[in-house]
Amino acid sequence: MSARGRRSGGADTRAEILDVARGLFAAKGYDGTSVRGVAREAGVDPALVHHYFDGKPGLFSEVVGVPAGIEEQITAAVAGPHEGAGERVVRTFLRVWDGPEGRDRFRALVGAVASHEEAAHLLRDFVSRSILRSLAHIFGDEDVLPDLAVAAVGAQLVGMALLRYLLEVPPMADADPEEIVAVLAPPIQALLVP
Amino acid sequence: MSARGRRSGGADTRAEILDVARGLFAAKGYDGTSVRGVAREAGVDPALVHHYFDGKPGLFSEVVGVPAGIEEQITAAVAGPHEGAGERVVRTFLRVWDGPEGRDRFRALVGAVASHEEAAHLLRDFVSRSILRSLAHIFGDEDVLPDLAVAAVGAQLVGMALLRYLLEVPPMADADPEEIVAVLAPPIQALLVP
Repeated sequence: MSARGRRSGGADTRAEILDVARGLFAAKGYDGTSVRGVAREAGVDPALVHHYFDGKPGLFSEVVGVPAGIEEQITAAVAGPHEGAGERVVRTFLRVWDGPEGRDRFRALVGAVASHEEAAHLLRDFVSRSILRSLAHIFGDEDVLPDLAVAAVGAQLVGMALLRYLLEVPPMADADPEEIVAVLAPPIQALLVP
Repeated sequence: MSARGRRSGGADTRAEILDVARGLFAAKGYDGTSVRGVAREAGVDPALVHHYFDGKPGLFSEVVGVPAGIEEQITAAVAGPHEGAGERVVRTFLRVWDGPEGRDRFRALVGAVASHEEAAHLLRDFVSRSILRSLAHIFGDEDVLPDLAVAAVGAQLVGMALLRYLLEVPPMADADPEEIVAVLAPPIQALLVP
């Protein structure tokens, strides 16, 4: 595609970069994909990719369909004293997804995952690589959590989101965020700090 | 449609009954729909609907896309001593959905819910009416669970299924059922028996 020469910006260019990135992430995974490689194939300057997406993590979030910065926010939430970590994780997760835009994003994400193998693959990569790893590593090497407990924390958050945003099952859909924190934080706390 | 007269069976008739039932459940909800009404609109004898689907609950399960009898199995799992109820619920849920057919069904179910408002509505009705109610009522009137805690139990099971069957996140997708019981039963037990 470099035959087209480099383009300098605009909405079409942004969409084109996303298209190229989607293909490369799907074909080569997160580690095998670089901003430089995406820029080359899209026929743009790498600086433009950085400008639009704030580097590879931001580009990947956009492709996967998760809100930018969710990884950093969850990492920050688990940091600090072990006490209250469960509460902070649930509260952060709700802050990221609550609100009309988050709901729509979550619906779109689940729809894509259910209908496209490629989307499922990308999201699996994202969940394993970033969310679960940042949950597990926060406690340091010596008392790292067993993987399955970490995945169970992820399952609780995702399941809550499914009932709240997609199925809209009444008590979960209508509840005040702090009510959900009160009911979900204890089990998550018990998994994070056995 | 009664103008067509009654038909006596065959694969097309079964599919036609399902189509009619899907429309009626969506329009009138579970309580407003009857086997007799479905039979009338499909132009068949009510006995044929009973024969194919084992009554209204079976018809509804088939329309929603959940395995037949899941409601009874979960009710049976929660029955008995409070001790060990969490384990029995997780084990039952895994027995219903594990295996290739269950996995495919779960994927199809999530896909339908994400893309069709009507499917989301039907599944919400099913989850609220049957699963959550059978979880809550099992403990009798005096110590009935707060709704949100029951919904949180549902969220944990659904979230686990999403990671295990749809995203196939490694530790959750590969784990032995009993490993999942070991990690998920304690939080569910704590929610069921505070």
